[in-house]
Amino acid sequence: MEKSFQDHYPESYRHCYGCGPDNDHGLRIKSYWDGDESIADFQPQHYHLAFPGYVYGGLIASLIDCHSTGTAAAAAYRRAGREQGSSPPFRFVTASLHVDYLKPTPMGPPLHLRSRIAEITDKKVIVTTDLLVEGTITARGKVVAVRIPEHLVPEKE
Amino acid sequence: MEKSFQDHYPESYRHCYGCGPDNDHGLRIKSYWDGDESIADFQPQHYHLAFPGYVYGGLIASLIDCHSTGTAAAAAYRRAGREQGSSPPFRFVTASLHVDYLKPTPMGPPLHLRSRIAEITDKKVIVTTDLLVEGTITARGKVVAVRIPEHLVPEKE
Repeated sequence: MEKSFQDHYPESYRHCYGCGPDNDHGLRIKSYWDGDESIADFQPQHYHLAFPGYVYGGLIASLIDCHSTGTAAAAAYRRAGREQGSSPPFRFVTASLHVDYLKPTPMGPPLHLRSRIAEITDKKVIVTTDLLVEGTITARGKVVAVRIPEHLVPEKE
Repeated sequence: MEKSFQDHYPESYRHCYGCGPDNDHGLRIKSYWDGDESIADFQPQHYHLAFPGYVYGGLIASLIDCHSTGTAAAAAYRRAGREQGSSPPFRFVTASLHVDYLKPTPMGPPLHLRSRIAEITDKKVIVTTDLLVEGTITARGKVVAVRIPEHLVPEKE
């Protein structure tokens, strides 16, 4: 089975609430390439409500955020011609997050995220994302992800 | 004790993951006026991590989102010269959310949100927010909140 972007994260980065495989309380999203786009699916829980019948916007923002920083890292490996997970790791943090909520997102079906790399340099990746429910785009996101500053990189990898 | 903005929500709006007093799994943020600004404090849990030592950006986005829509509603009541919680209720949803992560947000101390009304009309409120940790601004947010469309208002209030 194909490993997700997040399954390649080094130990120090596996605790993220949104995408860390080792965060027992978290969302544990999993992202994959689909050609030049990246995708992720997430099943909201019954309590991820905005109000009855609709998905919480903060969850949507969180999914877009983590899927985008994961996509930024994967894109950096791809651009460098390197395998994901090889050392030294590429890791990104969010400089800015923008979400347009185009229509209410109905609660029930899985949420599907589909992202594109709008721009990539050594230090920065801009990722744009559509969030869809059963084929309908309900939100659009744009994340500016930047390489994690050296002084924040945990020493043990 | 002063009631928070969220404590005035009618029943149908009390289930929000971010700010619903009745969501047992949620963040249950509480917002208050401080003069012309609105404030909220939130204690992150140990699992709200981005990576060890730092707060998850999706949590920050969620707090800014809910504090802002709550502030939008409170501002609409104030503008109308009405008590919060009086009928018919003013409720807002997020049209767009923007967060600039200015620096990493250290895990440990409570997060303090402080918001201003940048613009208010009958249908729209724009709220800008600083998020601070021990007096240092680590993130800034801007939310465009719109009056909830009539067809989405639950019938039973």
